[in-house]
Amino acid sequence: MTETMPNWLKKRADLSPNREALIFEGNTYTFKQVFEKAKSYAAKLGAISLNRGETAAVLFSNQAESVFILYALQMAGIRTVILNNRLTSEELSWQLGDSEAKVLLYETRFNDKVSEINYDIRNISSDEWSQLQEKTVTILEEYNLDEVTTIMYTSGTTGNPKGVMQTYGNHWWSANASALNLGLHEHDKWLCTVPIFHISGYSILMRSQIYGMPVILHSSFEEKKVIEDIRKYQVTVMSVVSTMLRRVLAELGSEKLPVSFRCMLLGGGPAPLPLLEACLDKDIPVFQTYGMTETSSQFATLSPEYSIQRLGSAGKALFPNQIRIVDSDEQDIPQGAEGEILVKGPNVTIGYLNRPDVTADKIRDKWLHTGDIGYLDSEGFLYVLDRRSDLIISGGENIYPAEIEGVLLSHPGVSDAGVIGASDEKWQQVPVAFIVKSDPDISEDALLALCEEKLAKYKLPKKFYFVEDLPRNAAKKLLRRKLREWLEAEGDAIGH
Amino acid sequence: MTETMPNWLKKRADLSPNREALIFEGNTYTFKQVFEKAKSYAAKLGAISLNRGETAAVLFSNQAESVFILYALQMAGIRTVILNNRLTSEELSWQLGDSEAKVLLYETRFNDKVSEINYDIRNISSDEWSQLQEKTVTILEEYNLDEVTTIMYTSGTTGNPKGVMQTYGNHWWSANASALNLGLHEHDKWLCTVPIFHISGYSILMRSQIYGMPVILHSSFEEKKVIEDIRKYQVTVMSVVSTMLRRVLAELGSEKLPVSFRCMLLGGGPAPLPLLEACLDKDIPVFQTYGMTETSSQFATLSPEYSIQRLGSAGKALFPNQIRIVDSDEQDIPQGAEGEILVKGPNVTIGYLNRPDVTADKIRDKWLHTGDIGYLDSEGFLYVLDRRSDLIISGGENIYPAEIEGVLLSHPGVSDAGVIGASDEKWQQVPVAFIVKSDPDISEDALLALCEEKLAKYKLPKKFYFVEDLPRNAAKKLLRRKLREWLEAEGDAIGH
Repeated sequence: MTETMPNWLKKRADLSPNREALIFEGNTYTFKQVFEKAKSYAAKLGAISLNRGETAAVLFSNQAESVFILYALQMAGIRTVILNNRLTSEELSWQLGDSEAKVLLYETRFNDKVSEINYDIRNISSDEWSQLQEKTVTILEEYNLDEVTTIMYTSGTTGNPKGVMQTYGNHWWSANASALNLGLHEHDKWLCTVPIFHISGYSILMRSQIYGMPVILHSSFEEKKVIEDIRKYQVTVMSVVSTMLRRVLAELGSEKLPVSFRCMLLGGGPAPLPLLEACLDKDIPVFQTYGMTETSSQFATLSPEYSIQRLGSAGKALFPNQIRIVDSDEQDIPQGAEGEILVKGPNVTIGYLNRPDVTADKIRDKWLHTGDIGYLDSEGFLYVLDRRSDLIISGGENIYPAEIEGVLLSHPGVSDAGVIGASDEKWQQVPVAFIVKSDPDISEDALLALCEEKLAKYKLPKKFYFVEDLPRNAAKKLLRRKLREWLEAEGDAIGH
Repeated sequence: MTETMPNWLKKRADLSPNREALIFEGNTYTFKQVFEKAKSYAAKLGAISLNRGETAAVLFSNQAESVFILYALQMAGIRTVILNNRLTSEELSWQLGDSEAKVLLYETRFNDKVSEINYDIRNISSDEWSQLQEKTVTILEEYNLDEVTTIMYTSGTTGNPKGVMQTYGNHWWSANASALNLGLHEHDKWLCTVPIFHISGYSILMRSQIYGMPVILHSSFEEKKVIEDIRKYQVTVMSVVSTMLRRVLAELGSEKLPVSFRCMLLGGGPAPLPLLEACLDKDIPVFQTYGMTETSSQFATLSPEYSIQRLGSAGKALFPNQIRIVDSDEQDIPQGAEGEILVKGPNVTIGYLNRPDVTADKIRDKWLHTGDIGYLDSEGFLYVLDRRSDLIISGGENIYPAEIEGVLLSHPGVSDAGVIGASDEKWQQVPVAFIVKSDPDISEDALLALCEEKLAKYKLPKKFYFVEDLPRNAAKKLLRRKLREWLEAEGDAIGH
């Protein structure tokens, strides 16, 4: 049965109008204020003829205004393509074209980037936006849980990025699953320093509306400010990746966080033992999670009491969720053995935008084939061994080697290319490239220049290794594990 | 989209096997133990050839064993008719026949009652049950949220009781809606002294599985034991009706409950001011709720901070829920004006068993017509003025005047009958009857004897008034409000 429920923000403004909803750079907005803001922004959508069911793209940084516009689009029933603001104009152009977005709303600071977009789309900067007249617009009274509200692009093993469709229901269930796991306290406040264009940040906004919980939003991650605001606002929960957690701990020095702080929700791969021990030492509860854009954030979580004992585990699937580990014939594998991780649950995407082929291939019988490799131990705890397509996670950003390899291979002087992640103290991982030359004169500089033109900065290889041949199996599949062995032999010290 | 999720109890036993699930008469069962118990009980269902999709009826009191059997039935996908153990054999016979239950599982203590049941059904007492061999049985791996799991009978304005069908999804959403409102703390423990055959008690069991929360179950309400166990187990939440709350307060005397106690969830009509003031005085937070079997428990709730200021209100619809007030043409009525209360939300029943006519009449466009009369104040707080069909709530039990009137009218010496609730110090309300005789010799004793034969004890009129005529409108509809005025003129002192 298709479930509907009341417009979240409107309902929240009705239930707890005076509760704090958003705190950004010293300004506090109640749910009533956020709703009024978002409603007046929704009324501007009329001025640019954006209508229910149509698609808009947004290019924003973490700002209060960005939140209001995201909420306005959600309330108006506009599908929203949330763009990663670190992408190049070329990458953005591709996603805009693929999504068939009608309008691009962007923050004026991204003027230069937008001016270079090579796709014919109506652009409206935040400066122009503020000048728009409000027209009457109908905000949704109810959300249909089966309807798509957001689209976020992810890359994959091969080919172009794909738009992951997230429904109202996906976000709803994700927020509920998280609450059933972490609990829900009257005084919860969630600190968001991760990008709201990623599901990690966007899901915090959804929880805010659904729980009636304030979000303390930072425009970027700065450990000093993090500690300051955790203390000032009595923050109880924060979403982090290892590198952020390490920096917070370093900044804390011999001090501690307030006792009211109750959860570091850690994504982007398992934390190393010394980091977990340091957290234990400071009474900072770390909840390690496994999730992805396709699962609308957290899918499995490890409770802090297991963090040392089950080192490297991402815990168990949240209450509404299920995990299977299968072999290449899609047969379940006994506990302890490695295989592909399949996930199922009401927070799993309904599919990829305009890609019924990929959707049918990846989601079978409601089970999403993640491409990630892992196993379940004897008590059912999940261990993720390899992220899908040898995903590199650098400072919380997902980097797909295949995408970088594609750019490198487009150079006429390159006959083969392989990219892997090298461990890095600051970013956790950084991409490095192995190159087989066809033109002996090709230089590292030339390759880097090409990458800079095509790829967001965080995706640029930090080092190039020129080799005779790349390790490939009989089916010519690149053996990235072999490359990692080579790298280890090199000292695994790139970027240190 | 039809959502499925993992078998709740199995999932819970996987996620938090060693957490306390059920405490009854000094025995504590973890989720793993409850799951194992329920699984072995499910295996007994094979022995009596009860299969997935079939219907069983249960007649139990609040016991640990009752919980295990209810869970077994739920896990096995057996639709369960949960019978009110206060009903007479005649009332039970009717519900068994109507539900077409294949088997009646009952607690041996109800032997006499069951032996008088006038419906041909296989009966299995708890004594017989304990002797049954376990057969292999498949418990459900997943619950389909659209599937019916429980059926509870309610009466109404006219006609026979109707079986309210509750899906897995109804219970799921109800538990989630409650958590979003009350919060969810790691150390929550819910005290259940209300019958688990009512939605008020049964919904606590559902929350237990979904939240991973212990239930302290009492076989009946005893204020001494309530206070004792709140202290002993550090209970945080308890479901009550006014009369229970009053008795707890009286028993407490000058003492208080532990500070960890955080919620009295009060159903069955609003609490009077002196009671709320007494609770305020003792720092007992009272959450007044409006709900019914058809909404799978709580639908709207008033937060304690409003309890005095909004005296008599049931608060606002929980996050996934909506309320409308309409006139007899089903048109929305302005705030402040009285009308019928319509409710919509994912915890609202899909309808009445085998009664498509009543379902179509009561649920239109997903809005359930409650028959209750109320209004929304200027800020949207709900005030319930009259429960549907002048419902009488006596000690937490719903009593429908029409049902008692039907019995009285079946007596040849009665030409007209009207029943209303009189206020009562102990039970909050008790039924009283107004009778127009056709046979001048008919006695109160004769009428009471008839009622005793046909009706559960709590439904028996506490007083009979013999009158010349009953107040009816032009359409011959009984004007129960007029009867209440008569009663007030009599001193409104019945039962004191």
